[in-house]
Amino acid sequence: MIPTITAFERSPDRGRGLARDLRVRWALEEVGQPYEVRLLSFAAMKQPAYLALNPFGQIPTYEEGGLALFESGAIVLHIAERRAGLLPGEAAARARAIMWMFAALNTVKPPVFERALLMVLDRDRPWFNKRLGTLDDRIRERLRQLSARLGGADWLDGAFSAGDLLMVTVLRRLEGTELLEAHPDLSAYVARATARPAYRRAFAAQRAVFEAGQGGR
Amino acid sequence: MIPTITAFERSPDRGRGLARDLRVRWALEEVGQPYEVRLLSFAAMKQPAYLALNPFGQIPTYEEGGLALFESGAIVLHIAERRAGLLPGEAAARARAIMWMFAALNTVKPPVFERALLMVLDRDRPWFNKRLGTLDDRIRERLRQLSARLGGADWLDGAFSAGDLLMVTVLRRLEGTELLEAHPDLSAYVARATARPAYRRAFAAQRAVFEAGQGGR
Repeated sequence: MIPTITAFERSPDRGRGLARDLRVRWALEEVGQPYEVRLLSFAAMKQPAYLALNPFGQIPTYEEGGLALFESGAIVLHIAERRAGLLPGEAAARARAIMWMFAALNTVKPPVFERALLMVLDRDRPWFNKRLGTLDDRIRERLRQLSARLGGADWLDGAFSAGDLLMVTVLRRLEGTELLEAHPDLSAYVARATARPAYRRAFAAQRAVFEAGQGGR
Repeated sequence: MIPTITAFERSPDRGRGLARDLRVRWALEEVGQPYEVRLLSFAAMKQPAYLALNPFGQIPTYEEGGLALFESGAIVLHIAERRAGLLPGEAAARARAIMWMFAALNTVKPPVFERALLMVLDRDRPWFNKRLGTLDDRIRERLRQLSARLGGADWLDGAFSAGDLLMVTVLRRLEGTELLEAHPDLSAYVARATARPAYRRAFAAQRAVFEAGQGGR
């Protein structure tokens, strides 16, 4: 059974691969699972038919036979549990890889995502700079701690895992900022991950959606 | 092997059970797993010995034999996978319960946690009211969507699961606000969960730490 995922018909990131479907595409590519994509307009995402599938009206969803999942982290974990390539077999190493999935989304991502929202929604506010400074301080602490734990290794805990996959999708939101560039080891970690053939295929697939949308205008 | 978790020696929530160790205590109580607790001062949490265990300097950690985990969500999932009581046995239902764990921490929690930070750190800022309004709008949308999905059921998907456990710990941060009170069904959902004997034992255990600290002053 080939799963179907949903993605933006016109991603607000303009093909930069920052939308959450990239995580799922990348995971599917890492484990060699073919998939289909159903593109959605912003209007369709708020319709009852879609909310029945995804109550928060977000992308992506994952449908496979009678199973329908939302939440990119949960979908990546589901894929990783079904096919080899994203979780170690040994129990303790597997638990630690899952721990890094949660660390990426729950400890590193929050200030990074708030910063992205601020940049889009509040650039003209009188308090923009103050708020940006507060968020950047939170991000700097997290990156310093992450760099210390990585300690020059290629990946967070042994072989590349679903934990690295999610962490890199979070760090990519900081590409081009001094926050990430202050840590050459983390920049190299992102570069190492995004050079993986599975990542490149996933990135190209979402990019093609953006380019097709451009051509149609 | 009895696991050991870490918790605040003096929780900043003053015994209200909002610190993240409550999630882990509750999960351990639901599955009937005895545990030990190691209390930490704020200073100890930033020492190299603790950062080796938890690179982000947070509580809780979970240690069991040679395994050391951080991230409350990952710890709850580890507990739920090892002993019955928090995840359904059937594969699709299990995947959906894990999906709700991610939804609680990644979709519902972010604006709730940012609101809690704002209340503590930024009450005197000139932009406090504007920022509070923005966060409250984000929270209202999430609660409306969550309420619609719950649809009058007792739990998010069939029997009580680790997904409900995490969701309720997030919603508890809104107790006493009009945001939560606007949804009697969600208030009842929280009340239903916090009436569970396992929750009450977990709450009492963290409360006892606070009260012992008070007595020692």
